[in-house]
Amino acid sequence: MTHVYDVFEVRLNAAFAGNPYLEVTLHADFSFGNRTVRVTGFYDGEDSYVLRFMPDCEGEWTYRTKSNLAALDRIGGGLTAVPARPDVHGPVRVRHRFHFAYADGTTYLPFGTTCYAWTHQPIALQEETLATLAKTGFNKLRMAVFPKDYPFNTNEPLQPIYLAGADGNLDFDRPNPAAFRHFEAQIAQLGEMGLEADVILFHPYDRWGYATMTAAQNRRYVAYIAARLAAFRNVWWSLANEYDFMLNTIPMADWDGFCHILEENDPWQHLKSIHNGDPKMNFDHRKPWISHVCIQNWDVKRMPEWRAAYGKPVIDDEPEYEGTIWPAWGNITAEELVHRFWLALMRGGYAGHGETYADPDDLIWWAKGGKLKGEAWQRIAFLHALLRDSGVVGLEPMSGLIDGWPWTRVSGVKDLGGRVSFIYFGEHQPNQWTTGLPTDDGRYAVDLIDTWAMTVTPARQIPPLVQHPTRHGDAVRGGVADAAFGIELPGRPHLALRIVKLA
Amino acid sequence: MTHVYDVFEVRLNAAFAGNPYLEVTLHADFSFGNRTVRVTGFYDGEDSYVLRFMPDCEGEWTYRTKSNLAALDRIGGGLTAVPARPDVHGPVRVRHRFHFAYADGTTYLPFGTTCYAWTHQPIALQEETLATLAKTGFNKLRMAVFPKDYPFNTNEPLQPIYLAGADGNLDFDRPNPAAFRHFEAQIAQLGEMGLEADVILFHPYDRWGYATMTAAQNRRYVAYIAARLAAFRNVWWSLANEYDFMLNTIPMADWDGFCHILEENDPWQHLKSIHNGDPKMNFDHRKPWISHVCIQNWDVKRMPEWRAAYGKPVIDDEPEYEGTIWPAWGNITAEELVHRFWLALMRGGYAGHGETYADPDDLIWWAKGGKLKGEAWQRIAFLHALLRDSGVVGLEPMSGLIDGWPWTRVSGVKDLGGRVSFIYFGEHQPNQWTTGLPTDDGRYAVDLIDTWAMTVTPARQIPPLVQHPTRHGDAVRGGVADAAFGIELPGRPHLALRIVKLA
Repeated sequence: MTHVYDVFEVRLNAAFAGNPYLEVTLHADFSFGNRTVRVTGFYDGEDSYVLRFMPDCEGEWTYRTKSNLAALDRIGGGLTAVPARPDVHGPVRVRHRFHFAYADGTTYLPFGTTCYAWTHQPIALQEETLATLAKTGFNKLRMAVFPKDYPFNTNEPLQPIYLAGADGNLDFDRPNPAAFRHFEAQIAQLGEMGLEADVILFHPYDRWGYATMTAAQNRRYVAYIAARLAAFRNVWWSLANEYDFMLNTIPMADWDGFCHILEENDPWQHLKSIHNGDPKMNFDHRKPWISHVCIQNWDVKRMPEWRAAYGKPVIDDEPEYEGTIWPAWGNITAEELVHRFWLALMRGGYAGHGETYADPDDLIWWAKGGKLKGEAWQRIAFLHALLRDSGVVGLEPMSGLIDGWPWTRVSGVKDLGGRVSFIYFGEHQPNQWTTGLPTDDGRYAVDLIDTWAMTVTPARQIPPLVQHPTRHGDAVRGGVADAAFGIELPGRPHLALRIVKLA
Repeated sequence: MTHVYDVFEVRLNAAFAGNPYLEVTLHADFSFGNRTVRVTGFYDGEDSYVLRFMPDCEGEWTYRTKSNLAALDRIGGGLTAVPARPDVHGPVRVRHRFHFAYADGTTYLPFGTTCYAWTHQPIALQEETLATLAKTGFNKLRMAVFPKDYPFNTNEPLQPIYLAGADGNLDFDRPNPAAFRHFEAQIAQLGEMGLEADVILFHPYDRWGYATMTAAQNRRYVAYIAARLAAFRNVWWSLANEYDFMLNTIPMADWDGFCHILEENDPWQHLKSIHNGDPKMNFDHRKPWISHVCIQNWDVKRMPEWRAAYGKPVIDDEPEYEGTIWPAWGNITAEELVHRFWLALMRGGYAGHGETYADPDDLIWWAKGGKLKGEAWQRIAFLHALLRDSGVVGLEPMSGLIDGWPWTRVSGVKDLGGRVSFIYFGEHQPNQWTTGLPTDDGRYAVDLIDTWAMTVTPARQIPPLVQHPTRHGDAVRGGVADAAFGIELPGRPHLALRIVKLA
């Protein structure tokens, strides 16, 4: 008996004289009525082979293996899939073009943070990371398979990702099952906590050789990790972090191939994207094997441009990190990061959190996890809860795909659910507001939100602004629409409005 | 006897039965040795005709008129040009491609503000405007020839710009000499106070008909205002404010023609530009008759893009205004406007100030002048004084034309004078900094500047940052250069460094 969206595992044993990683193929067809799902198996060490399957509907499934090793071939069995456990909603999918939902239809609003190398730190620190995450509103974590060599990241990982060969060097044809099992255990733990694991397959911060494997080794690695991880409902594939900083070792053409290998070996087609370093080097996210846009860019007001360019959900994973370390991507204020989160959301996209406060022991959340020291994460949790509690399905810019007046300056979104809209003023501090407010004669509850103080208070409705006519200017260009009412505002920054239509 | 850069005026009288504005032509050739400067005259009412000349070098000048009216033709005379008065430096020119200097070689760093319709307000308010300007560090004022009809601008102007015809309507073939004389007097007054007058010839905010004159009337108006104003050393030509909002009355093709008319009738070739409304509608400032770029754009970090696109000095006149009025271009915080000024300057461009605090009597600096109520202007004056006192000639981005790492995030400039450089952190708050600091073994004075508190204090020099090597990342891409020293920073925002090479 397996719950829908949980992992059903088949473990088989067979002796093999050669290198099973290179030479043994293993698949299984899982069947449900006329439907067949092809699952790739993998070698897990010590003559053990594994097939992992995630049932996505209730009922009786059967399976039958296929292998070039006789002992693994034509083995059959079955499972009974029962209803998903409470709070388990399945993998996240794209919905309504620019937004996300779990497989069971529950809305998913990505509010992610970043601990690139947390699974490679001492176990006590990993436990602290999980305990910290449990206190936050984050529901996604960017994390890399390979350990990290970088400023502030000089310690050795807990264990190597590949086994040492006879010469003592890592043998990139022999994955270390223990390392992957640990990584999987942490993904599973995140899943239980309601977090998606945004798994980064490649990155350039390396002194061990992971960034300089051969092209064939890279392809095998991608197939292998797909076989190992795809049955975990909360996995997302992030092909790389800052792919453009490793084009000297992984050329541009290879990335598409990795996506195809994932598609071949991931029966559940988890979300796939790839993250740039240089803001001018966004990947061509229009490609059909990219499910959503991941970018690094400080200029989050440009969100509508990226939506229009790629036509997919946009997550700005790195709108710069809150902190004080010397690299210029890692030292904005908490206020600025909170501002950028609101801007991203209030222009139809999503943002990612990271924290990089200088630490005497280099214990920095962004790479190692541990403790959060800043002041943005609480406000981000507040924003997340506010949207969730408001029943948000997906926020669409008031101006449509390309932003028009005044939405290049202030930000406004309407929810696809049709009941709620938001206007975010940020650095703007008008003493009243009318544009974008409802134009019908329905009843509305309007709240004033202080994005820093995390307060929600009723806003005072006033007569709509009647603008002195402008012969060639605003009136013609839609400066103030025919709103049914206006809102009085206190003339200070970092405020937003929530407008809810009452029944 | 006329001082260099002052106005020498020739006034002639002649009776004429028709409309002198339409029918009488008047020019004079002013000669100095073999050099000849052709000056256009204008009709000033009551049978009076005027020629204005600004000598740009000392010595004996002679002139001789040419007119289709015999009484004005072949009239000769002369003047003795003596050295310029103290603090008079002549017209501002482009220097070093992206910067400005007065004709006598004195550096000019534009720090402008905006009072679009100040010359059309009651005289007492105009006097208050001048008194306010005298307290500030502003050295340029954007101001329109025509009065303004717009939200918060509903009052009638002091006087019409054209005379009423027999039908009581304005006759756009009969300029009102009194209105222009008043406008000129205020330009002269600004000149005495050290301010350039950025004269806006057309704008769309109109209920009197100035924005809907015929094409021929527009062309005559441009020639007329050039004849009247060109001899004032402190005039800049701003062809329009938000030209793209009046394309329904002045089509795109006409703007180039206006520039040519200015070139024909302005012997001193004052600076010329044209200001857009929609951020996507920048004029094509590459055209040779445009001397410098004027734009309206909130995204001042993109300054290096505009420098590269146009290859000319860039002034972002409207990076949004400090205030609380409802239009989204007029309600950012003082902190944000100060930030945007620093960003513009620290990326090789210039910015413009405006203030739009809601006022019960609509007395708003941006249009009417009067009093300044905000907190940005003092910080802008501080920045201006800091650059002037540092002997700045022209600030060039550390990264050259197109910005590279880390200068898309923080901002750094070197002065063309070779002695001083600045790094501006803004929303960034690193605890130390090395990139962009001097690489030689000279002695340097480094000051920490608090851009809001307006303090300049010595910064602590520390050993340069030695970065943990990154195999594919920052080190290769120049994250930290081989600086001779680093600077300790307090880990809070809105700071800058000034680095001065000691003799």
